[in-house]
Amino acid sequence: MTAMKVTAELADWIVGLKGTDIPAEVREEGVRTFVNWIGCAVGGAHHETVDAALRAVEPFSGPRKATVLGRREKLDALHAALLNGITSHVLDYDDTHLKTIIHPAGPVASALMGLAEIRPLSGRDLLTALIVGVEVECRIGNAVYPDHYDRGWHITGTAGVFGAAAAVGYAIGLDAQKMRWALGLAATQSAGLREMFGTMTKSFHPGRAAQNGAMSAFLAEAGYDSSEQAIEAKRGFANVMSDKQDYSEILGELGTRWEAALNSYKPFACGIVIHPTIDGCQQIRDEIGGARVKEIAKVQLTTHPLVLELTGKTAPKTGLEGKFSVYHSAACALLHGDGAPTAFTDEVVNQPEIVALRDKVKATADPNCHEASVTIEVTFNDGSTLTKHVERAIGSRDLPLTNEQLETKFMNQATLVIGDAPSRALLDLAWTIEDLDRAAEVAEVSVPTAKLQNAAV
Amino acid sequence: MTAMKVTAELADWIVGLKGTDIPAEVREEGVRTFVNWIGCAVGGAHHETVDAALRAVEPFSGPRKATVLGRREKLDALHAALLNGITSHVLDYDDTHLKTIIHPAGPVASALMGLAEIRPLSGRDLLTALIVGVEVECRIGNAVYPDHYDRGWHITGTAGVFGAAAAVGYAIGLDAQKMRWALGLAATQSAGLREMFGTMTKSFHPGRAAQNGAMSAFLAEAGYDSSEQAIEAKRGFANVMSDKQDYSEILGELGTRWEAALNSYKPFACGIVIHPTIDGCQQIRDEIGGARVKEIAKVQLTTHPLVLELTGKTAPKTGLEGKFSVYHSAACALLHGDGAPTAFTDEVVNQPEIVALRDKVKATADPNCHEASVTIEVTFNDGSTLTKHVERAIGSRDLPLTNEQLETKFMNQATLVIGDAPSRALLDLAWTIEDLDRAAEVAEVSVPTAKLQNAAV
Repeated sequence: MTAMKVTAELADWIVGLKGTDIPAEVREEGVRTFVNWIGCAVGGAHHETVDAALRAVEPFSGPRKATVLGRREKLDALHAALLNGITSHVLDYDDTHLKTIIHPAGPVASALMGLAEIRPLSGRDLLTALIVGVEVECRIGNAVYPDHYDRGWHITGTAGVFGAAAAVGYAIGLDAQKMRWALGLAATQSAGLREMFGTMTKSFHPGRAAQNGAMSAFLAEAGYDSSEQAIEAKRGFANVMSDKQDYSEILGELGTRWEAALNSYKPFACGIVIHPTIDGCQQIRDEIGGARVKEIAKVQLTTHPLVLELTGKTAPKTGLEGKFSVYHSAACALLHGDGAPTAFTDEVVNQPEIVALRDKVKATADPNCHEASVTIEVTFNDGSTLTKHVERAIGSRDLPLTNEQLETKFMNQATLVIGDAPSRALLDLAWTIEDLDRAAEVAEVSVPTAKLQNAAV
Repeated sequence: MTAMKVTAELADWIVGLKGTDIPAEVREEGVRTFVNWIGCAVGGAHHETVDAALRAVEPFSGPRKATVLGRREKLDALHAALLNGITSHVLDYDDTHLKTIIHPAGPVASALMGLAEIRPLSGRDLLTALIVGVEVECRIGNAVYPDHYDRGWHITGTAGVFGAAAAVGYAIGLDAQKMRWALGLAATQSAGLREMFGTMTKSFHPGRAAQNGAMSAFLAEAGYDSSEQAIEAKRGFANVMSDKQDYSEILGELGTRWEAALNSYKPFACGIVIHPTIDGCQQIRDEIGGARVKEIAKVQLTTHPLVLELTGKTAPKTGLEGKFSVYHSAACALLHGDGAPTAFTDEVVNQPEIVALRDKVKATADPNCHEASVTIEVTFNDGSTLTKHVERAIGSRDLPLTNEQLETKFMNQATLVIGDAPSRALLDLAWTIEDLDRAAEVAEVSVPTAKLQNAAV
């Protein structure tokens, strides 16, 4: 395949796509992506990271027409895109395209929701644009992954800006030339370093990708021109930012192979390697009941070696450290049945009964154990034992979250921020996105009452 | 030198610096940098690139407190930084740090001028911050140049964002920790591809660097944290974006070696390789007078080979092509004495008398000719000849523009946009920047009357 017209061919495909060209199962995954994103954005809306970002951007906000989901503040559509990109990623609980570790919705949905509040946009058109954006960012990610990521780029930021530009450009009806310019403006803003992991700046990446991608589309619309071969040119995105360029990943099987259909959703608010353990411990709790959990004398985990390498903290002190402790995670799943963000607060990590159970958990690495598997052997005070083998954890590619599990995840997050009944109303509305005349309605319904916002803060 | 504390040591130096620590000759070069930047920003204010950018950003502007220099529109301070960064670069006529080809003022001065219109900032403090920002971006540029540039990064964008963050962070009084965060937020937004050269997106780079660098400082001020070793970390700026990292360029001789003192200013609005020819042709015109120019039968140039390689267009049709024609440039310097942006309009390039003289110009490449030199042999209709050898062109490192020449350049640009007397008043004010209680006064004085703005458009 010649590398000469990657950007142009991709732009042609984007502008020529009709919503009806997208298979039903891909649209269904798009709705799941949207629902999961709304829940994560509302769930993270009052994190201290978000408060700091708001303090910084508020003096510069334009017309306050767009919602920061789950909050009462409004901002201009571009700053709202930035903030919603931050909120939806800040708990490390969002969606994942497992082939590239891109978190697809943050950059794309955040840009589109801002757009929906300043220009007419139906729910059906928002969903089509969301799928377009996710498809574009994941395909561009595939073309340069893993070299690009290994070099140190946070691919959710670097590929995400293309997704946001494509999605907004599609939604506002750019022609093919302006779509090429929008992709060019996105390419020249592609940024985000992995060095930022562990700081507030990590979640800045999907936010800025959303904001900058949207701006790329608006600049192109206004006649601001750019390179028309920004992805493949000698001094363009793929050659400058990666040592691998596989353009067949971008142009191959367009319209038949759908990366957007491969999106996955974390069931638990922590690194994916602990998920089998949490899954297994929750199953054990469901089987034996909470009272019997108090009679546990010992828990023996047999896991993939990566689990101990990445999450081997035996005595976490903070909620954030708790995310890197398979011991805490096991204890919390057994005692509270919890793997949601509520399991990883400073308070829960230091609860005496959690600490006591955590200290009874031991773990052994087994190179033959699959990453998505675990064996858990529980010994009770009376000497009896129970063994649970998890072959594939929920949320893995072989066992995706059901819609019901997505709902539970959504409610666990959103209820804390906007209350139970409003969360249920928002969830029901999000599922019907394709039927809404105004996609903006979802953002409006996410706004909490003044009383609840104060409680959340 | 250990690579462990580059960002932290640089941040310490920035926050500890006092204006009086900067030697008088460095401050003087800072004033020249400022004056040249004002002239370029006003000169480019009505370019079609700027009009397109304004159309795109206006719907998103926050409080309209900051000036787009040379225009009547106001924007919020961050969008004004974006626009002034574009205007000051759009004619390719701005300043150059020759060691790195960074155009230093665009990202830094644009960010600071926006700041000056929303917070109290004296001219003296603006100048100190400008020198800090230029020093930081050029040192970071030195550390990775030339590998970083060769790889395809437009270094004015990638290094400029650090300069803007450092300058604004200094001016708003960040402490050392927040300065490290600001540099981290800048690092993770470092972007800009050379593929954009030849499009409007090239001048987007210094603009976006100004805007994003300023935002980095405001985010850090608001408590938005970031990596504290973003420059030198394994997955940080220098390792991810360059194969060369020489941290002694960043930390060596801080406060005694001043990169900000090495700034240079283009005398002519075109590629630097044609400058000796324009310089020599202007000298010939001054010596023989305009009437005698009409009697020229032939012009023979002997130049460095790069001149013909980069600017060998014999029959340019547009103003932009004229910038890549040493033949047009020689003719225009002889006939009109002009090398300013007015020499590179579509109209001038197609003037019959220019075309006629251009066709009499021949050029020969001589590998022994220095890049800053040229020999020009003119033959007149009466058979007599005149030879002019330019050993070093004005604007080269060995022959920097005098203040008087800077004034001529300023007036040639600004008069077309805001008129003669207002340009003179603005120029006089810019020279006195260090005496102004409010640096914002310079921006205010740059605003044209309604009548003039219409004429310029």
